[in-house]
Amino acid sequence: MSLHDSPVSPEGPSIHPIDQATAPYYWGIDIGGTGIKLGLVDENGHTVAYQKLPTREPEGAEAALNRVAAVVSEVEQRLGVVGKVPSVGLGAPGPMDLPRGLLVAPPQLPTWWDYPIVAKIAKLLGRPVAFLNDANAAAFGEFWIGTGRYADSMILLTLGTGVGGGIIVDGELVNGVNSFGSECGHILVDPSPTARLCVWGGGRGQLEAYASASAVVDRTRDRLTEGAESSLSGLLGGGDSELTARKVYDAAKNEADPLALEIIDETAKWLGIGITTLVHALDPGVVTLGGAMNFGGADCSIGRRFLARITDEFQQRTFENVFDGTTIGFASLGADAGYLGLAGYARKQALKLL
Amino acid sequence: MSLHDSPVSPEGPSIHPIDQATAPYYWGIDIGGTGIKLGLVDENGHTVAYQKLPTREPEGAEAALNRVAAVVSEVEQRLGVVGKVPSVGLGAPGPMDLPRGLLVAPPQLPTWWDYPIVAKIAKLLGRPVAFLNDANAAAFGEFWIGTGRYADSMILLTLGTGVGGGIIVDGELVNGVNSFGSECGHILVDPSPTARLCVWGGGRGQLEAYASASAVVDRTRDRLTEGAESSLSGLLGGGDSELTARKVYDAAKNEADPLALEIIDETAKWLGIGITTLVHALDPGVVTLGGAMNFGGADCSIGRRFLARITDEFQQRTFENVFDGTTIGFASLGADAGYLGLAGYARKQALKLL
Repeated sequence: MSLHDSPVSPEGPSIHPIDQATAPYYWGIDIGGTGIKLGLVDENGHTVAYQKLPTREPEGAEAALNRVAAVVSEVEQRLGVVGKVPSVGLGAPGPMDLPRGLLVAPPQLPTWWDYPIVAKIAKLLGRPVAFLNDANAAAFGEFWIGTGRYADSMILLTLGTGVGGGIIVDGELVNGVNSFGSECGHILVDPSPTARLCVWGGGRGQLEAYASASAVVDRTRDRLTEGAESSLSGLLGGGDSELTARKVYDAAKNEADPLALEIIDETAKWLGIGITTLVHALDPGVVTLGGAMNFGGADCSIGRRFLARITDEFQQRTFENVFDGTTIGFASLGADAGYLGLAGYARKQALKLL
Repeated sequence: MSLHDSPVSPEGPSIHPIDQATAPYYWGIDIGGTGIKLGLVDENGHTVAYQKLPTREPEGAEAALNRVAAVVSEVEQRLGVVGKVPSVGLGAPGPMDLPRGLLVAPPQLPTWWDYPIVAKIAKLLGRPVAFLNDANAAAFGEFWIGTGRYADSMILLTLGTGVGGGIIVDGELVNGVNSFGSECGHILVDPSPTARLCVWGGGRGQLEAYASASAVVDRTRDRLTEGAESSLSGLLGGGDSELTARKVYDAAKNEADPLALEIIDETAKWLGIGITTLVHALDPGVVTLGGAMNFGGADCSIGRRFLARITDEFQQRTFENVFDGTTIGFASLGADAGYLGLAGYARKQALKLL
């Protein structure tokens, strides 16, 4: 909600001054259902060029990746960095097969299923490709140059339509043996047979079913249907598109709507439960909340209330020394975390190869 | 239950033939509330000497560690390996402070609280000490030469009086920023305000409160008090010491006691829930159940039923490709996993120093 999300760039790439940048450079290419973000990033995490292309999903992967390659070539020539970009980080939504370099079946990209994306990009650009889940990429961005930059380990939870996550342990991303590592939105927070169903299908009682924007809408609608009084009541008849997590936030912020505040507090409670579990398994010291659904974030009283409620729940459920040794806060890179993390991961892989 | 646990060794160390062993060797020293296990282990994980000393907790840490040092010296001389044991792995129950090398407050060892155990052992033995939580050590043992020996990542859950755990991601143990990593017994499986309380105090609804031997006893007692019919009913009046997880297992095995079977199935269900959460966070590919409370393990129909119920619950709650890519089974090293893992970890640390 507080995050900017850059529109598709119709005028071509935005080029930033490169005289203070430090070579080599790395591409971060973040594939989404509607847009593809390309960032060229220097050794220290500064973006020297950025463009967002439309995905044009119905045209398929091949066409989109050819447009990506054209931008890469154009930017490198304009900046005079041809030969100074040793590797590329590529991110996409799951489910995916990291070792085989495939998008398996991302719901946002039906024409891309089973497409050998890594081989294609490697061939088009002629260099090694580091391939990541998009949520893991965002976590690596925050770890490299965002809220986790002084940490050895961290967990990022991305709160959006769903709940994504990325886990870093001692500097290493948890990508998983089945390319399913760090799927923090799928940890169980409610084991009961009547627990809420996950947004994307799949199981009941998973964190995503309680702490995503979709879950906020669903729970608000349920309470309104039960007759809860709220300034949001008028939206109930308007179909699903009328009631959004953003409107719940606005109602809480502008009118201190009791139902809206209750829903936000409940969301925080479930996040506190999920975070307790993740911290007890991993003890990372740093837990960061990213994604658009942060209820205004640290710049807003509702966002601060949200964070305080999460922290309270965690404190009630953990041990004193663990609570004292853990920082929970909001992410700092916004919607750029993905391509930045991909560039950072490409850098990490390139340095390992030396 | 199925695991042997070697008694204290009154006749001194047992020495195994060393002619087929491969130098260098590593000590694994596993400190417990009643006994201290010392194993000298070769490069390939073969034990060349073993002794279990009584802890004699009231005498304090100093006295116990002097006895440990005497055994180390005696064994190395008898085997002719003086100078061929470059490092030592030391394990103990938590809470601990790994960077500072302290036992903070283990409930089993009150006279050892805040004792600088790592500095003391390093001084007595004159070599570097790799220090671990005992459950993490057992996980590393299974990872090195047990059920995880062909895996890159794994999770071990140790089912005993409590539930311990150890997580290995891409070969690295998750020890945590606050020395609280891999505390899988403390992940939340039931968020409700009436959830069961943890065995060792602390929070409600944690896995340990449902899947430990103590939890099995508590739940059985509750059901008997409610009037459930069972061959175990006669034990209800006999005080807490009469009803044990072992007796629940025996009742299930010998008499197919319906209550005992129900309790075992319930325990499996909670483990399946906890394992789903851990796998969705970490996707390790291998989940191993160690510790004494395995209801007979793979050699017994009750143990196999227990494992099948755990696997069923996991299958219902996870995704098909994750289920297909994950193996859940029993650990293979028994009560030796701890000292073996400590020796293996000392080896790993020594190799890193080269």
